[in-house]
Amino acid sequence: MVQYSTTTLVLYLSFPYLSVSFLNTQLVTSDIRRRLLDVVKKARYVGIQGTQFNTYVTLKLQNVKSTTVTVKGPTPCWEQDFLFEINDINLGLLVEVWNKGVIWDRALGYHYLPLTSVAYDEQECGGRWVELEAQLMMRGGAVVGTTGPTGHALLLDCRFEPPFGES
Amino acid sequence: MVQYSTTTLVLYLSFPYLSVSFLNTQLVTSDIRRRLLDVVKKARYVGIQGTQFNTYVTLKLQNVKSTTVTVKGPTPCWEQDFLFEINDINLGLLVEVWNKGVIWDRALGYHYLPLTSVAYDEQECGGRWVELEAQLMMRGGAVVGTTGPTGHALLLDCRFEPPFGES
Repeated sequence: MVQYSTTTLVLYLSFPYLSVSFLNTQLVTSDIRRRLLDVVKKARYVGIQGTQFNTYVTLKLQNVKSTTVTVKGPTPCWEQDFLFEINDINLGLLVEVWNKGVIWDRALGYHYLPLTSVAYDEQECGGRWVELEAQLMMRGGAVVGTTGPTGHALLLDCRFEPPFGES
Repeated sequence: MVQYSTTTLVLYLSFPYLSVSFLNTQLVTSDIRRRLLDVVKKARYVGIQGTQFNTYVTLKLQNVKSTTVTVKGPTPCWEQDFLFEINDINLGLLVEVWNKGVIWDRALGYHYLPLTSVAYDEQECGGRWVELEAQLMMRGGAVVGTTGPTGHALLLDCRFEPPFGES
């Protein structure tokens, strides 16, 4: 019997049709599939401007993205779950934090997470604080990292779901 | 007396505090300022999937972005105005078209508009259809163009506002 962790279950129960059809058509092109689970937990911003921030987080993988809700303040808390089904371990997850304005949104910082650095884990743990940086580093048309510390930090819990139902 | 075109006026009347304070602090770092006016008018998508699309357009310039509302169908119409106040003519405006999903949004295509290709014009004209392409072309960490035709097209009206009130 296939079992899902609590994190995965949230998405599957909420959007059963989408988690099957959309993810399969958009991201999966081979039979080697991994489920990447990412919980965007919270952030802490430096500087007195932080009290006026109204921020959201965008996760990007290839040509697909998803976004958290927008939360006010210098220590916003999202605790929002995301699932990516992927077939290429050489990709990376680009995490962007934006401050929402009335017309313009401004990027507060970026974090790039190579999928090769993500471990398999059955359960969600407390996550890891990552630094947000000001600029993207590119190579050959793809993001490979970030540079320029901003002082802002983001708590992420990112893991691959181990295969279930296999003997 | 300083006069604004109708397009500009829309933004200034709606958000008078933001158009001054935010744009000045975020984008303007020298005294040579140009007002870039961009109207995202409409799009036409190819393929039978287009009837199910629910799309929005994002405009990006450096670390600032703005987004249209989301419109359904294969020929969405936005007619939405944007104003950027800039000081570096060597930048480019990155236009992204996204198909909105329940969890995941998927990029339908990109168009890169170098600011050196934008003309000064007092009045909005009918705009110009531009092709959307599948991938970004990068050089030295910055977007310099796009590649890979998608067949989708976007009608943009982009111009620099001529200086007013000068003799």
